[in-house]
Amino acid sequence: MYPDERRILLTPGPVVFSIDNLRYMLSTVYEHTSIDFAEIYGRAIKKFRSIIGANGNFPVFMFSGSGTLAMEASLINILKPGSRVLVVSHGFFGDRWAEIARVNGYDVKVLYSDVGDIVDLGFIAEELSKGGYDALLVTHVETSTGVRADVRSLASIASKYNTLIFVDGVSSVAAEPLDCSRWGVDVLVTTSQKALETPPGVSIVALCTSRAVKALEANNGNVRSFYMRLSDWRKVMEAYEDGRISYHATPPTHLIVALERALTRILEEGLEARFKRHYILAKALREGIRALGLEVVAKREEIASNTVTAVYTPQGVDPIELRRRLARGNIIIALPLHPALRGKSFRIGHMGSVNHNDIVAVVALLERTLASMGVKIELGSGLRAVQQILLTENL
Amino acid sequence: MYPDERRILLTPGPVVFSIDNLRYMLSTVYEHTSIDFAEIYGRAIKKFRSIIGANGNFPVFMFSGSGTLAMEASLINILKPGSRVLVVSHGFFGDRWAEIARVNGYDVKVLYSDVGDIVDLGFIAEELSKGGYDALLVTHVETSTGVRADVRSLASIASKYNTLIFVDGVSSVAAEPLDCSRWGVDVLVTTSQKALETPPGVSIVALCTSRAVKALEANNGNVRSFYMRLSDWRKVMEAYEDGRISYHATPPTHLIVALERALTRILEEGLEARFKRHYILAKALREGIRALGLEVVAKREEIASNTVTAVYTPQGVDPIELRRRLARGNIIIALPLHPALRGKSFRIGHMGSVNHNDIVAVVALLERTLASMGVKIELGSGLRAVQQILLTENL
Amino acid sequence: MYPDERRILLTPGPVVFSIDNLRYMLSTVYEHTSIDFAEIYGRAIKKFRSIIGANGNFPVFMFSGSGTLAMEASLINILKPGSRVLVVSHGFFGDRWAEIARVNGYDVKVLYSDVGDIVDLGFIAEELSKGGYDALLVTHVETSTGVRADVRSLASIASKYNTLIFVDGVSSVAAEPLDCSRWGVDVLVTTSQKALETPPGVSIVALCTSRAVKALEANNGNVRSFYMRLSDWRKVMEAYEDGRISYHATPPTHLIVALERALTRILEEGLEARFKRHYILAKALREGIRALGLEVVAKREEIASNTVTAVYTPQGVDPIELRRRLARGNIIIALPLHPALRGKSFRIGHMGSVNHNDIVAVVALLERTLASMGVKIELGSGLRAVQQILLTENL
Amino acid sequence: MYPDERRILLTPGPVVFSIDNLRYMLSTVYEHTSIDFAEIYGRAIKKFRSIIGANGNFPVFMFSGSGTLAMEASLINILKPGSRVLVVSHGFFGDRWAEIARVNGYDVKVLYSDVGDIVDLGFIAEELSKGGYDALLVTHVETSTGVRADVRSLASIASKYNTLIFVDGVSSVAAEPLDCSRWGVDVLVTTSQKALETPPGVSIVALCTSRAVKALEANNGNVRSFYMRLSDWRKVMEAYEDGRISYHATPPTHLIVALERALTRILEEGLEARFKRHYILAKALREGIRALGLEVVAKREEIASNTVTAVYTPQGVDPIELRRRLARGNIIIALPLHPALRGKSFRIGHMGSVNHNDIVAVVALLERTLASMGVKIELGSGLRAVQQILLTENL
Repeated sequence: MYPDERRILLTPGPVVFSIDNLRYMLSTVYEHTSIDFAEIYGRAIKKFRSIIGANGNFPVFMFSGSGTLAMEASLINILKPGSRVLVVSHGFFGDRWAEIARVNGYDVKVLYSDVGDIVDLGFIAEELSKGGYDALLVTHVETSTGVRADVRSLASIASKYNTLIFVDGVSSVAAEPLDCSRWGVDVLVTTSQKALETPPGVSIVALCTSRAVKALEANNGNVRSFYMRLSDWRKVMEAYEDGRISYHATPPTHLIVALERALTRILEEGLEARFKRHYILAKALREGIRALGLEVVAKREEIASNTVTAVYTPQGVDPIELRRRLARGNIIIALPLHPALRGKSFRIGHMGSVNHNDIVAVVALLERTLASMGVKIELGSGLRAVQQILLTENL
Repeated sequence: MYPDERRILLTPGPVVFSIDNLRYMLSTVYEHTSIDFAEIYGRAIKKFRSIIGANGNFPVFMFSGSGTLAMEASLINILKPGSRVLVVSHGFFGDRWAEIARVNGYDVKVLYSDVGDIVDLGFIAEELSKGGYDALLVTHVETSTGVRADVRSLASIASKYNTLIFVDGVSSVAAEPLDCSRWGVDVLVTTSQKALETPPGVSIVALCTSRAVKALEANNGNVRSFYMRLSDWRKVMEAYEDGRISYHATPPTHLIVALERALTRILEEGLEARFKRHYILAKALREGIRALGLEVVAKREEIASNTVTAVYTPQGVDPIELRRRLARGNIIIALPLHPALRGKSFRIGHMGSVNHNDIVAVVALLERTLASMGVKIELGSGLRAVQQILLTENL
Repeated sequence: MYPDERRILLTPGPVVFSIDNLRYMLSTVYEHTSIDFAEIYGRAIKKFRSIIGANGNFPVFMFSGSGTLAMEASLINILKPGSRVLVVSHGFFGDRWAEIARVNGYDVKVLYSDVGDIVDLGFIAEELSKGGYDALLVTHVETSTGVRADVRSLASIASKYNTLIFVDGVSSVAAEPLDCSRWGVDVLVTTSQKALETPPGVSIVALCTSRAVKALEANNGNVRSFYMRLSDWRKVMEAYEDGRISYHATPPTHLIVALERALTRILEEGLEARFKRHYILAKALREGIRALGLEVVAKREEIASNTVTAVYTPQGVDPIELRRRLARGNIIIALPLHPALRGKSFRIGHMGSVNHNDIVAVVALLERTLASMGVKIELGSGLRAVQQILLTENL
Repeated sequence: MYPDERRILLTPGPVVFSIDNLRYMLSTVYEHTSIDFAEIYGRAIKKFRSIIGANGNFPVFMFSGSGTLAMEASLINILKPGSRVLVVSHGFFGDRWAEIARVNGYDVKVLYSDVGDIVDLGFIAEELSKGGYDALLVTHVETSTGVRADVRSLASIASKYNTLIFVDGVSSVAAEPLDCSRWGVDVLVTTSQKALETPPGVSIVALCTSRAVKALEANNGNVRSFYMRLSDWRKVMEAYEDGRISYHATPPTHLIVALERALTRILEEGLEARFKRHYILAKALREGIRALGLEVVAKREEIASNTVTAVYTPQGVDPIELRRRLARGNIIIALPLHPALRGKSFRIGHMGSVNHNDIVAVVALLERTLASMGVKIELGSGLRAVQQILLTENL
């Protein structure tokens, strides 16, 4: 067993969070067919809706799986066979949208951005204006590069061209502003282990518009998967929300219990405060990194996400060695995922219950580690930049 | 929050187990891309193989999902489109095999048993002998009726007719004797929350013959799901088993950690001892129930499972009311799932770390509860029968 | 590490309780000088008072230690040097009162009961009537024999003769009716690990009458211990109760947090219901034991406690071997403590969150174990007696 | 409930440690009369001895209580009534030695240091040379000022004058070099919640010389406390160490289990590495604080402890307000205890599993907080000093 709870996880996968969320997982008495459990499940659904801004009682699905399964389930249940989809890809997870769509037989066109950039909105609008697209698939925060798509504008454009928009909110939900129903995000998918501060294992799909619900209903007969059939899950989820029990496949009881507590704590913090905290910390981190002479992958501040920062390694620094040294210093960062960034960058996740102490610690450790690897670093220079932001922003 | 850890869960879904398995879930530092985690994952795979009797290095898959997802993933990865499958159904979960196969476009024929009985082996052999069946799908222990299929003989028959056999071991693995490679079980699927004594959320698929591996490889191009594509998962699982990291979709880290500990404890008990314990307790329970004048759904002792017992309620006793009263007495049993048993039966699960104290307690509580509901019961009569078995068997 | 949480602890020391009480001990952030902690501490004090029936704001002390330390601290703080004390001893813990008093220099007279009996009230009154006794020391439930003193009557007698009464409530608080202020119990001592369902490590002393408070104040200058000086602790405890912080010696923060939760759950159950539950279970256990032909040490039903039952082993049965065999069956009982009972009896504790399932289980295991040791036992006979009580009493 | 496990506890009372130590406290099956528990207890004793450098099988006592109780128990068991003791007091806890000795009737002389300084060794030697002192009492690390006594030299001097030396190692054991038997420390007392990384509630007394054992034996008849009588506890502790059970008063089972794990982890780190880590971090902290223009209470580097740093607040800064603001920033520091430092200083604890990330975080937060309170601070200046030490020392 390897836990050393004093480690600071700053990967963009599992993220830093408090052990408080997990306390009630330590129980052997949860059973998915009890009223007690149904009530917890139902509260989780309601709280999740308020976090993403889903109005009314639009269906929310939570079942055993990962974010990837949520993406796949959302597509095959809502898009009829042969649909044409436009994927806006800013990196690895944009490409994943495309691959999932292709594997499932859809007609896929992809618009690629440069690494660290996003696809121009006008360009997307132009492509959609050509007509014939049933869906627009986009990644809110591209975990491989740390850029954030302008989901609000994309939803508006999609709506104009009568195209359903699917948003992968895996690295954004509960950390980046998101107001699904008002913005017109039709389908949102996410998972538990990012800013929702819960262990991995919950696929989450939310429909946030009537249009999406109608599409789901219209496509019911076409779904060629038993497990992923959302029309079956819908009855189950509605039962849970009413405090009744139902069954399609066994839900991940313990993770749902942990998720419900995490959602409660998120709402206690308050969404505004939470988004602002993520924003300031991300900005402080980027300024600290730049003050050290390093380059952030995200090309412009306004597209840099609040949750993940990819950074180019200085000349002569091997990311694998850098990660290993930081790990010895009890801070865990991530290696690159994007093919174009392999061997020359690293990634820092900063979502969940991340706070200023973590940002200060990681910049301090970066300073010393890079210095020890022969990079010319003025000790304290990155930290000074971090401190200035934090002091100014009063965090 | 509703935990009262003194409750005894005797449902056949989540089962009675020790909180010791869960201790290490209370950690916020697991990350799926760490060597530490990879090593735990790798050990879980190896230990699982030894529990089911999978020789060599046949692929074992563990990912986020349920038993149902494991069933579906096994079919679509191994059986080429249009395959003909013969389903042996002894109830609800046999029917589920058939439904999953149909939804995925296979040509399905089902042999049904009477409720509480199993399909005659000769009858199955005869059907297979007609030729043309690519696969035989069977449920080891049918959770809805408590009967156990003769998997060893079925595997032998399937082999004779050159048909792949898929076994749903959800309610049997680690509680009923099973020796996959030797018996010739090609594909075994199961999940975490039954006799593996771990919270729900892990889909497990194991290939146990070269034949199955070849079929997987041959069918690679046909799999129309990204998440479930076992050829991709295979590389990931092999990496984990070698203590390296890899990625297809995020695994349920915390559940894997819990599962690894549960598997360790299972092997410490010893499989022989464990199977025998389950056998004696199941027998004692059935004798206790019969001594109270109740009828067990499983029609014969030799097909009654060691893990689940379905029982007909006495005249005038509503199962829902019975369950509620037992729950007040801190023992949780399950309602019927099988359509033919609704309203007239209940189910007791007895797998995992169940022991004689649980069996004595449930029979005692049944005696008193039925008596309080007006059933003519001689107090102590069920218990005496239980005691005699336990004393004789020296448990 | 040896936990197997499926064991049933029926010792009279640590007792059976739910792991729910412990969840919040798993934290590294408690500090005794925080307001948050002070508030938890304060609530624990208030809840404890309501459990023992201490009116008003009489001082309650909780600090690191055991029940024995609580006994010693209560004596030396309240009784001036050279005081004459009368000890009513029903066994090992009565003798401990006497020994503590002697070590601390008091003039001690002991009235002994026969084993399994209590000292006659008239006899005690007669002794007190001779005059000159400053204090009467008594054990509410004598853990070594399972008998219960008539504390209410003893308090009344003590009051009549103007003698302070000190009650050792270690094995009675929260399980046996007790109404300290109304009954006139001056000083009550207890500890955390019995019916208060918390790990050991908290000494608890409560003053429940003005008389006791005055005695404490009058004796302040005589206390020759720094750690145990209750006048210092008093300021600290009052601060905690007001939600302020203070310091004399570091309190057992984690145990206090667990205790506060345990007290909350006890009050949620309701004292009346709780006392009744203990009463019925104790009675059922005794009837089950007698039906097996064994003899209970407590000589009469009206003095048999609701929390501990000492039982004579049948001819030829070694208690050590019996305990070992029961432990193999996952039920832990205790060996005798009383010198006169060594080698010929055993003890069963039944307090805390004990329920009917535990009583049924232990009688069942006793039946089989004794039978396997050659005792003539009619299987089911003990259980039938248990069942009859439980059914009649509707538990 | 108030846990937010992301808080960093830098108080000198409870200290920063990993939740890993606590995992096994979550169990309801520990019983002090089981062999399993006795073995854990025995291992804890052996490991503790190797941490403090106690040779052979000198008695070690661990029972429910605090550090203060350990101090008191050590005195009254080893020093015969009327003994003359010389107390070397560097602050609050030195004074506590004196007060405990006085309350227990010893003839006490105190040598006081200036605040932030230690008493001159020559001066102590001179006092002892006058003769007639039975014991020298000293605090290894004075938690109220952060100074460290030269225990090695003091032990040598005490030995020269044939005086027993008692060392309060509460804030030093497992963080400051200590080699009791070799140095000639006769009696060492400590407790669980400091660098031993366990919740509070365990009094620990260790005799480390034959001289101390003889004194204990010679004084046996004089001990006027039942609970604290070490001759009784000695049999119990020896039994535990042999894996047998015994009883004097109930030990704090759960805390002992946690302590045993903490001791194991401490030895895994290695004492040399551990002492060095504490040294570097303490030095880095002091340099950071001085670079901010603040003054450390300890007057010289060579007497500044590795575990606690007291700091004078800048003009116009209220320590209470400073603590509150730091707490809002998720770092908890302590207020002054020493009367002469009230209102004008604060204290930072840095022992246990403290690491460089904590030191960086606290200096960063101090910088910003003091700046926000109007103190003239050059942002980054304290951090630069910290970084330089950490880089140079390669931590």
